[in-house]
Amino acid sequence: MQKQKVRTAITPTREENYPEWYQAVLKAADLAEHSAVRGCMVIKPWGYSIWENIQRILDGMFKETGHQNAYFPLFIPLSYMEKEAEHVEGFAKECAVVTHHRLEKGPNGKLIPAGELEEPLIVRPTSEMIIGHSYAKWVESYRDLPILINQWANVVRWEMRTRMFLRTTEFLWQEGHTVHATKEEAIEETKKMLDVYSTFCHQYLALPVIRGEKTESERFPGAVNTYTIEAMMQDRKALQAGTSHFLGQNFSKSCGIQFRNVAGEQEYGWTTSWGATTRLIGAMIMAHSDDDGLVLPPRIASAHLAIIPIIHSEEARAKILSYCDELSSRLKKVHYHGQPLRVIVDVRDMRGGEKSWSWIKKGIPLRLEVGLREMEAGQLQVARRDKPHKEMTPFAEEGIVHLLEEIQANLLAKATAFRDQHTVEIRDEKTFKEFFTSKGDEIHGGFALCHFSEDAQIEAKLKDEFNVTVRCIPLHLPQKPGKCIFTGKAGSTQVIFAKAY
Amino acid sequence: MQKQKVRTAITPTREENYPEWYQAVLKAADLAEHSAVRGCMVIKPWGYSIWENIQRILDGMFKETGHQNAYFPLFIPLSYMEKEAEHVEGFAKECAVVTHHRLEKGPNGKLIPAGELEEPLIVRPTSEMIIGHSYAKWVESYRDLPILINQWANVVRWEMRTRMFLRTTEFLWQEGHTVHATKEEAIEETKKMLDVYSTFCHQYLALPVIRGEKTESERFPGAVNTYTIEAMMQDRKALQAGTSHFLGQNFSKSCGIQFRNVAGEQEYGWTTSWGATTRLIGAMIMAHSDDDGLVLPPRIASAHLAIIPIIHSEEARAKILSYCDELSSRLKKVHYHGQPLRVIVDVRDMRGGEKSWSWIKKGIPLRLEVGLREMEAGQLQVARRDKPHKEMTPFAEEGIVHLLEEIQANLLAKATAFRDQHTVEIRDEKTFKEFFTSKGDEIHGGFALCHFSEDAQIEAKLKDEFNVTVRCIPLHLPQKPGKCIFTGKAGSTQVIFAKAY
Repeated sequence: MQKQKVRTAITPTREENYPEWYQAVLKAADLAEHSAVRGCMVIKPWGYSIWENIQRILDGMFKETGHQNAYFPLFIPLSYMEKEAEHVEGFAKECAVVTHHRLEKGPNGKLIPAGELEEPLIVRPTSEMIIGHSYAKWVESYRDLPILINQWANVVRWEMRTRMFLRTTEFLWQEGHTVHATKEEAIEETKKMLDVYSTFCHQYLALPVIRGEKTESERFPGAVNTYTIEAMMQDRKALQAGTSHFLGQNFSKSCGIQFRNVAGEQEYGWTTSWGATTRLIGAMIMAHSDDDGLVLPPRIASAHLAIIPIIHSEEARAKILSYCDELSSRLKKVHYHGQPLRVIVDVRDMRGGEKSWSWIKKGIPLRLEVGLREMEAGQLQVARRDKPHKEMTPFAEEGIVHLLEEIQANLLAKATAFRDQHTVEIRDEKTFKEFFTSKGDEIHGGFALCHFSEDAQIEAKLKDEFNVTVRCIPLHLPQKPGKCIFTGKAGSTQVIFAKAY
Repeated sequence: MQKQKVRTAITPTREENYPEWYQAVLKAADLAEHSAVRGCMVIKPWGYSIWENIQRILDGMFKETGHQNAYFPLFIPLSYMEKEAEHVEGFAKECAVVTHHRLEKGPNGKLIPAGELEEPLIVRPTSEMIIGHSYAKWVESYRDLPILINQWANVVRWEMRTRMFLRTTEFLWQEGHTVHATKEEAIEETKKMLDVYSTFCHQYLALPVIRGEKTESERFPGAVNTYTIEAMMQDRKALQAGTSHFLGQNFSKSCGIQFRNVAGEQEYGWTTSWGATTRLIGAMIMAHSDDDGLVLPPRIASAHLAIIPIIHSEEARAKILSYCDELSSRLKKVHYHGQPLRVIVDVRDMRGGEKSWSWIKKGIPLRLEVGLREMEAGQLQVARRDKPHKEMTPFAEEGIVHLLEEIQANLLAKATAFRDQHTVEIRDEKTFKEFFTSKGDEIHGGFALCHFSEDAQIEAKLKDEFNVTVRCIPLHLPQKPGKCIFTGKAGSTQVIFAKAY
């Protein structure tokens, strides 16, 4: 007998087709859309406000850890890119190249590029080479160090397969670039910023992430070590949500960042870089949303509460609307994590049910329907986005912050339980292969914690056969050395394997 | 007899060489520097923090007037640019063009552009054409209107002569793009946003601006009307500090933004766009700074107060430093225009005088030197950046906000007086020509208020001969029609002529 199908606001459901569900959630919540420019997206107001919240909070965390913002050019001269061999090799296949600086009428009257540049310019895919060039001029003595700078910017990587928020040709991000006098200090910075990302994901996105180090094959081009935070999505795939790189002296040498140390000798600086992108929004969507649409963690939500007036008669209209406006004004004076509550009174000319569903799909944490009777009796009911849509809780103004915090905690707990449920220790190759082999179309796999003796060939083979990669060598594990499940080599470290975005 | 020369921190002085003085102020304040990429600048932390303050305040004003932020692609397909003939003609000469999407090894082993695009992409010089394309999809019915969206972004205009903050190839800005159901509403929006810019300049940058309309020859390419705010710099030149355009139905027609009106008929939308850029920082610098360097209006300043410990003995060090830290912590809890006071304790290892001068050059509004004797006597003295550098005022913690507001008001009053002093009504061509003719290298001219019957040929001639343009037809004047000073034509409007940045 077939399971009776529950009607959901989003079609298909996660189980039916996860990638299509994701696109449908984006569309139903009006977060973003494809643009006419290959691989580029338009971030619509409801989606962009999430990015504004991410920016505000992360920026505060960067400043608290001593960083300042600056801005460097969008373009990188080709000759700069070439200075770091590994780096340019890593990005050469995905560089947008500016070759002309004007347009003129061609022979058929159509405009064509003109004014060819002597040296082509790369639209920055990342800014190590252009920022490094400035730092080389700024740094003279150990007294000039550390340099702790961050930049909020757009970058372009010409991706062949794009997916909104997760991988787009142009994306928004922040990139921190620092220079230190010692190796130890640079490593400390690299790890500190990884912790900032991890804290941010847990506390704001309600996203439990695993902090870890990348294996060589997954390192940032030119880095000595790359650290990552990895989150599990509801299709049990991993998503890299931020990275922090210890660059050693590689970029200092190619850019010429030298300083006079205390002893008066010239030394190369030790640099780091670290970045997080609009991808965080994709991670948040895929971790929390359900078959009725987007679910927004309150601390990062575009808005916290939608007040929906239910008007059955014209006489009641003015009364209800003024009640809603007053309630909204009062609530907007309440502070939640240092910001005024974001409250919307939905006065659109449409049925109440339709309105409610539009807010469910948009993921707003709380919905409050205000009808005449409930209003006069002082017995309003509020609906939580993290509960079934018909479940109501008595509404009390003074309890709203508590309610939001409860939702926030609930989302983190749910995502953590889901991740833990689908994280397994695997001790042999056969089980590993079964774990990552689907028996049809259904969602399978997860995080496989295995002893592995780092080997690029095995990694390439696993990627090829199962589309599985080493996500990281987790930092939180005690790391008892054991036997590699593929080679039997003793003294191997424990790593996490997973399919990944 | 030669005037005795006063020693100044900036060489040359404004009088000696205004353009070089400007560059020297930027350098001494560590605001920005030229990058290796032609015409692009690096905005350093002290400069970027001014932009962060501008962004925060303007963004708040945009949101209060009902606008939301969104983000649209950096690239515009060439075919889109071509859809609005006047528009593309206006920008064709300064477009950076992306023609390739990867790099590969050329015959000599050097990297060369590869993967030629089928259609070249323009790096946005402004976003009417790309945003209009999205709006055409978003707008169906009058119920979808108005659309009130702003974007914070970088844009590129390939300028031949660049000057930091004033005119750079890449610059940062915001661009508002709105669609309305009626012409009246769109015109109202255009003027409302001009007022927002004007209010912002007066209240925050201490910059008195004149609101006005541009003549046809100075209009934004494709606009029906362009409104502008014009400020006077200390060399008496005008600087356009923001513009707001009523675009009529021009862009709606080229992008296909149509809506069903209440009567069920299809109509083209009425659009506006308005923008302000990092140029505002240049305007602020040139309006207030002096021969000792940058002068920052407190409401927009990177920091408000530099506390400078004066340590003459090792015994006193700990005492003085802990006093400074405590004072700083207390002051950071004081709010000034909704933000905590920004206080710096300057513990650098250099002489007190040197420190003081570095803060003078950086334009910080207040400097507080803390020596042992004054500290113990509770008689600290504070120095104001808007007063001669040796003039001190007794310092009182509780008076600091008032002091900052006094400086803010003082800067606005000074700039207003300067502008008014150099604004003259001119009634005949001869006086006009004298006014704009220099008798050597010295600073001359100003704003010339003249009756003028709009005539593009005369405008071209004046630009050619005197480098003078019509800055605007001011909105604040009663506009008694009069005789054109060039043609004698009656019924001409009063306009402002000036040399301009």
